[in-house]
Amino acid sequence: MSADPDLAFDEQELLPAIAQDADSGEVLMLAYVTENALERSRETGEAHYYSRSREELWHKGGSSGHVQRIREIRVDCDGDAILYLVEQEGGACHTGYDSCFYRTLDGETVGEKVFDPESVYE
Amino acid sequence: MSADPDLAFDEQELLPAIAQDADSGEVLMLAYVTENALERSRETGEAHYYSRSREELWHKGGSSGHVQRIREIRVDCDGDAILYLVEQEGGACHTGYDSCFYRTLDGETVGEKVFDPESVYE
Repeated sequence: MSADPDLAFDEQELLPAIAQDADSGEVLMLAYVTENALERSRETGEAHYYSRSREELWHKGGSSGHVQRIREIRVDCDGDAILYLVEQEGGACHTGYDSCFYRTLDGETVGEKVFDPESVYE
Repeated sequence: MSADPDLAFDEQELLPAIAQDADSGEVLMLAYVTENALERSRETGEAHYYSRSREELWHKGGSSGHVQRIREIRVDCDGDAILYLVEQEGGACHTGYDSCFYRTLDGETVGEKVFDPESVYE
Protein backbone atom coordinates (compact mmCIF):
# COMPACT_ATOMS: atom_id res chain seq x y z
CA MET A 1 0.00 0.00 0.00
CA SER A 2 1.36 3.40 -0.85
CA ALA A 3 1.47 6.37 1.50
CA ASP A 4 -1.74 8.28 2.02
CA PRO A 5 -1.50 11.24 -0.32
CA ASP A 6 -1.97 13.89 2.31
CA LEU A 7 0.47 12.62 4.91
CA ALA A 8 3.74 14.53 5.16
CA PHE A 9 6.26 12.22 6.78
CA ASP A 10 9.43 14.03 7.86
CA GLU A 11 12.94 13.39 6.54
CA GLN A 12 13.26 10.47 8.97
CA GLU A 13 10.00 9.08 7.57
CA LEU A 14 8.22 9.72 10.86
CA LEU A 15 5.03 11.48 11.82
CA PRO A 16 4.17 12.52 15.39
CA ALA A 17 1.09 10.70 16.70
CA ILE A 18 -0.98 11.86 19.65
CA ALA A 19 -3.01 9.26 21.54
CA GLN A 20 -6.17 10.55 23.18
CA ASP A 21 -8.62 8.59 25.33
CA ALA A 22 -11.76 8.47 23.19
CA ASP A 23 -14.06 8.54 26.23
CA SER A 24 -12.43 10.84 28.79
CA GLY A 25 -10.69 13.06 26.23
CA GLU A 26 -7.45 12.82 28.17
CA VAL A 27 -4.29 13.21 26.10
CA LEU A 28 -2.36 10.03 26.86
CA MET A 29 0.96 10.26 25.04
CA LEU A 30 2.88 11.52 22.07
CA ALA A 31 4.92 9.11 19.99
CA TYR A 32 5.87 8.63 16.34
CA VAL A 33 4.67 6.45 13.50
CA THR A 34 6.19 5.23 10.29
CA GLU A 35 3.98 4.43 7.34
CA ASN A 36 4.32 0.78 8.31
CA ALA A 37 3.28 1.43 11.92
CA LEU A 38 0.25 3.35 10.71
CA GLU A 39 -0.71 0.50 8.38
CA ARG A 40 -0.39 -2.00 11.21
CA SER A 41 -2.65 0.19 13.35
CA ARG A 42 -5.29 0.25 10.65
CA GLU A 43 -5.03 -3.45 9.97
CA THR A 44 -5.11 -4.65 13.57
CA GLY A 45 -7.22 -1.95 15.23
CA GLU A 46 -4.56 -1.55 17.92
CA ALA A 47 -2.15 1.37 18.11
CA HIS A 48 1.30 0.80 16.69
CA TYR A 49 4.17 3.26 16.77
CA TYR A 50 7.82 3.35 15.81
CA SER A 51 10.20 3.23 18.75
CA ARG A 52 12.97 5.71 17.99
CA SER A 53 15.14 4.38 20.82
CA ARG A 54 14.78 0.71 19.87
CA GLU A 55 14.54 1.54 16.16
CA GLU A 56 11.71 -0.87 15.55
CA LEU A 57 7.98 -1.23 15.12
CA TRP A 58 6.29 -0.90 18.50
CA HIS A 59 2.95 -2.52 19.26
CA LYS A 60 1.87 -0.47 22.27
CA GLY A 61 0.94 -2.84 25.09
CA GLY A 62 2.30 -5.85 23.24
CA SER A 63 4.23 -6.97 26.32
CA SER A 64 2.41 -5.12 29.15
CA GLY A 65 -1.10 -5.82 27.90
CA HIS A 66 -1.86 -2.10 27.96
CA VAL A 67 -3.02 -1.96 24.38
CA GLN A 68 -4.84 0.95 22.78
CA ARG A 69 -7.87 -0.06 20.73
CA ILE A 70 -8.30 2.46 17.98
CA ARG A 71 -11.70 4.02 17.51
CA GLU A 72 -10.66 6.61 14.93
CA ILE A 73 -7.56 8.09 13.34
CA ARG A 74 -7.48 11.77 12.45
CA VAL A 75 -4.99 13.78 10.47
CA ASP A 76 -4.22 17.46 10.86
CA CYS A 77 -4.67 20.23 8.28
CA ASP A 78 -1.22 19.97 6.75
CA GLY A 79 -0.86 16.21 7.18
CA ASP A 80 2.17 16.31 9.43
CA ALA A 81 0.58 14.94 12.60
CA ILE A 82 -2.02 12.32 13.41
CA LEU A 83 -4.36 11.70 16.31
CA TYR A 84 -5.31 8.24 17.56
CA LEU A 85 -8.62 8.19 19.43
CA VAL A 86 -8.28 5.09 21.58
CA GLU A 87 -9.70 2.94 24.30
CA GLN A 88 -6.75 2.51 26.65
CA GLU A 89 -6.32 -0.78 28.48
CA GLY A 90 -4.64 -0.21 31.88
CA GLY A 91 -2.54 2.96 31.76
CA ALA A 92 -0.70 4.60 28.90
CA CYS A 93 2.48 5.52 30.77
CA HIS A 94 5.26 3.13 31.72
CA THR A 95 5.42 4.92 35.11
CA GLY A 96 1.97 3.59 36.02
CA TYR A 97 0.03 6.78 35.35
CA ASP A 98 -2.99 6.86 33.09
CA SER A 99 -1.33 9.51 30.92
CA CYS A 100 2.32 10.34 30.20
CA PHE A 101 1.35 13.98 30.82
CA TYR A 102 0.85 13.44 34.56
CA ARG A 103 2.91 16.44 35.73
CA THR A 104 2.67 20.17 35.25
CA LEU A 105 5.71 22.04 34.03
CA ASP A 106 6.11 23.25 37.62
CA GLY A 107 6.45 19.69 38.83
CA GLU A 108 3.04 19.16 40.37
CA THR A 109 1.60 15.68 39.86
CA VAL A 110 -1.91 15.93 38.42
CA GLY A 111 -2.33 12.48 36.84
CA GLU A 112 -3.74 9.36 38.35
CA LYS A 113 -1.67 6.28 39.05
CA VAL A 114 -3.57 3.30 37.72
CA PHE A 115 -1.08 0.43 37.96
CA ASP A 116 2.14 -0.58 39.65
CA PRO A 117 4.87 -0.58 37.00
CA GLU A 118 6.95 -3.11 38.94
CA SER A 119 4.21 -5.68 38.64
CA VAL A 120 3.86 -5.11 34.91
CA TYR A 121 7.40 -4.65 33.61
CA GLU A 122 9.94 -7.21 34.80
CA MET B 1 16.55 31.64 32.63
CA SER B 2 18.02 28.24 32.04
CA ALA B 3 16.18 25.29 30.55
CA ASP B 4 13.86 23.41 32.83
CA PRO B 5 15.90 20.46 34.04
CA ASP B 6 13.55 17.78 32.82
CA LEU B 7 12.87 19.05 29.31
CA ALA B 8 14.61 17.17 26.52
CA PHE B 9 14.75 19.51 23.53
CA ASP B 10 15.75 17.74 20.34
CA GLU B 11 18.88 18.40 18.27
CA GLN B 12 17.08 21.33 16.60
CA GLU B 13 16.28 22.69 20.08
CA LEU B 14 12.58 22.01 19.56
CA LEU B 15 9.95 20.20 21.56
CA PRO B 16 6.56 19.13 20.18
CA ALA B 17 3.67 20.91 21.90
CA ILE B 18 0.07 19.70 21.83
CA ALA B 19 -2.66 22.28 22.39
CA GLN B 20 -5.86 20.95 23.96
CA ASP B 21 -9.05 22.86 24.70
CA ALA B 22 -9.17 22.98 28.50
CA ASP B 23 -12.97 22.85 28.58
CA SER B 24 -14.06 20.56 25.73
CA GLY B 25 -10.95 18.36 25.81
CA GLU B 26 -10.61 18.63 22.05
CA VAL B 27 -7.08 18.29 20.71
CA LEU B 28 -6.60 21.48 18.71
CA MET B 29 -3.17 21.30 17.10
CA LEU B 30 0.40 20.08 17.28
CA ALA B 31 3.25 22.53 16.88
CA TYR B 32 6.74 23.04 18.25
CA VAL B 33 8.31 25.21 20.91
CA THR B 34 11.79 26.47 21.58
CA GLU B 35 12.87 27.27 25.10
CA ASN B 36 12.24 30.92 24.27
CA ALA B 37 8.71 30.24 23.00
CA LEU B 38 7.93 28.30 26.15
CA GLU B 39 9.23 31.13 28.31
CA ARG B 40 7.09 33.64 26.40
CA SER B 41 4.06 31.41 26.96
CA ARG B 42 4.69 31.33 30.69
CA GLU B 43 5.35 35.05 30.90
CA THR B 44 2.37 36.21 28.84
CA GLY B 45 -0.17 33.49 29.56
CA GLU B 46 -0.79 33.08 25.81
CA ALA B 47 0.51 30.20 23.74
CA HIS B 48 3.70 30.82 21.79
CA TYR B 49 5.33 28.40 19.41
CA TYR B 50 8.25 28.36 17.01
CA SER B 51 7.27 28.48 13.36
CA ARG B 52 9.55 26.05 11.54
CA SER B 53 8.52 27.39 8.13
CA ARG B 54 9.03 31.05 9.01
CA GLU B 55 11.90 30.23 11.38
CA GLU B 56 10.71 32.62 14.05
CA LEU B 57 8.87 32.93 17.32
CA TRP B 58 5.14 32.56 16.70
CA HIS B 59 2.54 34.14 18.95
CA LYS B 60 -0.52 32.06 18.05
CA GLY B 61 -3.37 34.43 17.15
CA GLY B 62 -1.10 37.45 17.17
CA SER B 63 -2.49 38.57 13.80
CA SER B 64 -5.82 36.69 13.62
CA GLY B 65 -6.88 37.36 17.20
CA HIS B 66 -7.31 33.62 17.74
CA VAL B 67 -5.10 33.49 20.79
CA GLN B 68 -4.85 30.57 23.17
CA ARG B 69 -4.99 31.55 26.85
CA ILE B 70 -2.98 29.04 28.80
CA ARG B 71 -4.58 27.45 31.81
CA GLU B 72 -1.87 24.88 32.47
CA ILE B 73 1.26 23.45 30.88
CA ARG B 74 2.06 19.78 31.34
CA VAL B 75 5.16 17.81 30.47
CA ASP B 76 5.35 14.14 29.60
CA CYS B 77 7.19 11.38 31.45
CA ASP B 78 10.45 11.68 29.56
CA GLY B 79 10.29 15.44 29.04
CA ASP B 80 10.25 15.35 25.26
CA ALA B 81 6.72 16.70 24.68
CA ILE B 82 4.52 19.28 26.33
CA LEU B 83 0.78 19.86 26.54
CA TYR B 84 -0.83 23.29 26.58
CA LEU B 85 -4.29 23.30 28.16
CA VAL B 86 -5.86 26.39 26.66
CA GLU B 87 -8.93 28.52 26.21
CA GLN B 88 -9.09 28.96 22.44
CA GLU B 89 -10.35 32.25 21.04
CA GLY B 90 -12.11 31.68 17.69
CA GLY B 91 -10.74 28.52 16.03
CA ALA B 92 -7.32 26.92 16.22
CA CYS B 93 -6.97 26.02 12.55
CA HIS B 94 -6.13 28.45 9.74
CA THR B 95 -8.75 26.64 7.62
CA GLY B 96 -11.54 27.92 9.88
CA TYR B 97 -12.10 24.71 11.81
CA ASP B 98 -12.04 24.61 15.58
CA SER B 99 -9.28 21.99 15.50
CA CYS B 100 -6.55 21.22 12.98
CA PHE B 101 -7.58 17.55 13.36
CA TYR B 102 -10.88 18.07 11.58
CA ARG B 103 -10.59 15.08 9.22
CA THR B 104 -10.31 11.35 9.67
CA LEU B 105 -7.51 9.53 7.91
CA ASP B 106 -10.16 8.30 5.46
CA GLY B 107 -10.99 11.88 4.50
CA GLU B 108 -14.24 12.35 6.37
CA THR B 109 -14.70 15.82 7.85
CA VAL B 110 -15.59 15.54 11.53
CA GLY B 111 -14.61 18.98 12.82
CA GLU B 112 -16.71 22.08 13.12
CA LYS B 113 -16.08 25.17 11.05
CA VAL B 114 -16.16 28.15 13.38
CA PHE B 115 -14.92 31.04 11.24
CA ASP B 116 -14.41 32.07 7.64
CA PRO B 117 -10.65 32.12 6.98
CA GLU B 118 -11.03 34.66 4.17
CA SER B 119 -12.44 37.20 6.59
CA VAL B 120 -9.62 36.64 9.07
CA TYR B 121 -6.49 36.23 6.96
CA GLU B 122 -5.99 38.78 4.21
